[in-house]
Amino acid sequence: MAGLIKPLHNVYDQLRRLPGVGSKSALRLAYHIIDMDEAEVRRLAETLVAAKQQVHFCRICFNLTDSELCTICADGKRDHGTLCVVEQPQDAMAMERSHSYQGVYHVLHGCLSPLDGVGPDNLKLKELVHRVSEGTVREVILATNSNVEGEATASYIAQLLRPFDVRVSRIAQGLPMGGDLEYADEVTLAKALENRTVL
Amino acid sequence: MAGLIKPLHNVYDQLRRLPGVGSKSALRLAYHIIDMDEAEVRRLAETLVAAKQQVHFCRICFNLTDSELCTICADGKRDHGTLCVVEQPQDAMAMERSHSYQGVYHVLHGCLSPLDGVGPDNLKLKELVHRVSEGTVREVILATNSNVEGEATASYIAQLLRPFDVRVSRIAQGLPMGGDLEYADEVTLAKALENRTVL
Repeated sequence: MAGLIKPLHNVYDQLRRLPGVGSKSALRLAYHIIDMDEAEVRRLAETLVAAKQQVHFCRICFNLTDSELCTICADGKRDHGTLCVVEQPQDAMAMERSHSYQGVYHVLHGCLSPLDGVGPDNLKLKELVHRVSEGTVREVILATNSNVEGEATASYIAQLLRPFDVRVSRIAQGLPMGGDLEYADEVTLAKALENRTVL
Repeated sequence: MAGLIKPLHNVYDQLRRLPGVGSKSALRLAYHIIDMDEAEVRRLAETLVAAKQQVHFCRICFNLTDSELCTICADGKRDHGTLCVVEQPQDAMAMERSHSYQGVYHVLHGCLSPLDGVGPDNLKLKELVHRVSEGTVREVILATNSNVEGEATASYIAQLLRPFDVRVSRIAQGLPMGGDLEYADEVTLAKALENRTVL
């Protein structure tokens, strides 16, 4: 950004690297930082570093945690025989918000995407197979995203788990709540029709 | 945000206070921070604190600077007899981007807004009067925003400078470049008509 003094340009530069922060937002935020009290800026800065230092992966499910186990894996009241496989920690959180899942999770930390150089070895797949091979898991619910990479990852995992005595399921596809038929895409409609339930 | 582990929630909380960062962006950014290298997070944090520490107001025009004077006030080639009054440092930067102004600035750091408790004493108005009273300024261009507060501030300053032998002007209002008449509001159109220029 031309004409910006160096310290401000540095902030702009750092903020622009963040996802969803464009050139205008970065500039607006940079000016806001200068307007804040120094104590506030310090608190913001320290919070970022502290989070990065304290947060790591749960030893069992690879969700984010600041203890050894995440709160879900450490919870004896959850059903440890049902495993929901998600791409990212935020996906597990979205499932939790639905209040309709009582099992535990397995976070892959990505999905198969050959174009981005992400293969099976880059995901927590060996760890998933190991968990399933221990014999306590009865069902694996594949809750990867409903796009090309997510579907491919789900198929790959289904293949991978075939040798084990475990039920492998995939979350349903269909019209989202409040969705208009008129604006739904063809694939969603075809899936909604195919997976119709008897009332 | 329910279900978020503490260090992540702290980041979310700090980010949500920033302008233009809603609940969803804050969460997305918080997860991104955890995904970054620790060195990167540290660099981001340090850049914010350094900027806040190094940036202060120019002694003359109250624009942001990391030296005693801003680059514009320190520039002997600029016209120090013409003074453009803007609300915020980013407004001065916008003017600079137009490459059509050769004078210097005066940054008010706000505009008159009684509802927000901002009166004349909260702006750099005494400092403006002092600059004008020194006698070297020939013209003061009022470039506050084109909204109720900006207009009120411009009128107030025009009154304030009446005792001095200085030309006081206001930037033009009219249709923005590329603006459609069809979608322009009535006040803009009325101003565009009123301020029409002979070709």
